[in-house]
Amino acid sequence: MIGIVGLGVIGGSYAMALKAAGLGPVAGMDVDRAALDQALAMGIIQQGGRPDKALLGQCHLVIIALYPALVPGFLAEHRDHFRENCLITDATGVKYQLSLKLEGLLRPDVDFVMGHPMAGREKMGLAFASAQVFQGANYILVPTPRNREENLRRVEALARALGFASVRRVDPQTHDQLIAYTSQLPHAMAVALMNSDRPGRETGRFIGDSYRDLTRIARINDKLWAELFLENKEALLEAMDRFTQQLALIRQAVAQEDEAALRDLMRKSTRRREALDS
Amino acid sequence: MIGIVGLGVIGGSYAMALKAAGLGPVAGMDVDRAALDQALAMGIIQQGGRPDKALLGQCHLVIIALYPALVPGFLAEHRDHFRENCLITDATGVKYQLSLKLEGLLRPDVDFVMGHPMAGREKMGLAFASAQVFQGANYILVPTPRNREENLRRVEALARALGFASVRRVDPQTHDQLIAYTSQLPHAMAVALMNSDRPGRETGRFIGDSYRDLTRIARINDKLWAELFLENKEALLEAMDRFTQQLALIRQAVAQEDEAALRDLMRKSTRRREALDS
Repeated sequence: MIGIVGLGVIGGSYAMALKAAGLGPVAGMDVDRAALDQALAMGIIQQGGRPDKALLGQCHLVIIALYPALVPGFLAEHRDHFRENCLITDATGVKYQLSLKLEGLLRPDVDFVMGHPMAGREKMGLAFASAQVFQGANYILVPTPRNREENLRRVEALARALGFASVRRVDPQTHDQLIAYTSQLPHAMAVALMNSDRPGRETGRFIGDSYRDLTRIARINDKLWAELFLENKEALLEAMDRFTQQLALIRQAVAQEDEAALRDLMRKSTRRREALDS
Repeated sequence: MIGIVGLGVIGGSYAMALKAAGLGPVAGMDVDRAALDQALAMGIIQQGGRPDKALLGQCHLVIIALYPALVPGFLAEHRDHFRENCLITDATGVKYQLSLKLEGLLRPDVDFVMGHPMAGREKMGLAFASAQVFQGANYILVPTPRNREENLRRVEALARALGFASVRRVDPQTHDQLIAYTSQLPHAMAVALMNSDRPGRETGRFIGDSYRDLTRIARINDKLWAELFLENKEALLEAMDRFTQQLALIRQAVAQEDEAALRDLMRKSTRRREALDS
């Protein structure tokens, strides 16, 4: 039995993708009875209930899809409920703070392989779950010295079975620095862009694709993202500062009407963006 | 005869969209013989040559699709070549500086209605032109006191015939302030985001859709965008400063671990983004 803890948009997507891949059976665990009933009715879980020893004790693999701040408490509360040699993995977007806490929260026989499916959604809840979101996306495996190699391989194989195109391994600190830059900073930028509009003007009539693309993520789950930002404070502040410095270089070139400097900065970003696609 | 000056990606798209709408014939004007030959071979222009009195003198409507900095010189050079009562329009992304120069550059019988099709492309040249880019996009009409109402209506009707979904009128200064915010600032942000990456790390393996969407426009035509930035210096600097202030509020909330303030900022951006789509 595979357990999924938390039947929100990510947990629900896991349940759907597991079904599509022919894996399971799946036990869905949630405190929200309506989500459980819906998932049962959809046939994407075969058993459902609150997380407890009866359900967790059946699962050789448990996928935790809770808000980041809830994970340590969940592990502590259910320390003795996991099946022997259980493999646990998660889906949260920051890892370093969690990695520091794991040792003290787990039984010696239980392994926790941190994973990050890079397939976020703007919308919350099971209603927006989809088996498709993982197709072709990036998956990051974040090993710690405590992990057993066979379990790292099991989580990697699972990611590939669910449709992820690329699986990379990276240590927790590097993961959080990269995510601060590639995910949290863009969300902060989108929020700031939206909030810096002058109120009262009919902005929506004067936008093209670039503004629409860039602000899509300004519609944000504030509870989740505030947690992610604060869990990754140092790396995020550093990424924000590096970005602000680069923006200041553009500002200076504009203020000084230094066309050559401005074009240099644009050519640099063009080269880097082309390399990203190649 | 409708004249198009400059057969790059925008001029080429106009030629294709005119053909698709059953309008024309079209005279294409460019200094690049290869572009003219290609456009003639594609059947999207019926005559082609360098801009001169022979071609311009036939056109009751001339669409200028040149780089912004070239427009005043083009008008001066060809002042006496336009057909009597010719209607000229353009496609450049900034308007205020141009609006100040028009009076001195035009014959009294010639009307210049400034227009801004909000359908930019990252790629340059006729090869990337498409009749589809205008479909459903926003068109901005930027009247000056010099314009005749009938000509404003002609350009508006043309925009609708070419597929634009929304046509709004706005004065040159307001246009440039809006565009600084909705178009130039996002391009500056994308350039700065790309340039603030740490070199040497495998960033491409750790990105999701948000980073990809946001940096798409970091691949930028540096000659065109440096011109647009510098032509719109004051409005762009103001938009950049307003954005930087909002980003600093997010930074401060993170640094102070002020979750409530952070969530307030995110809820504000969420409300604004939802209003944009509605």
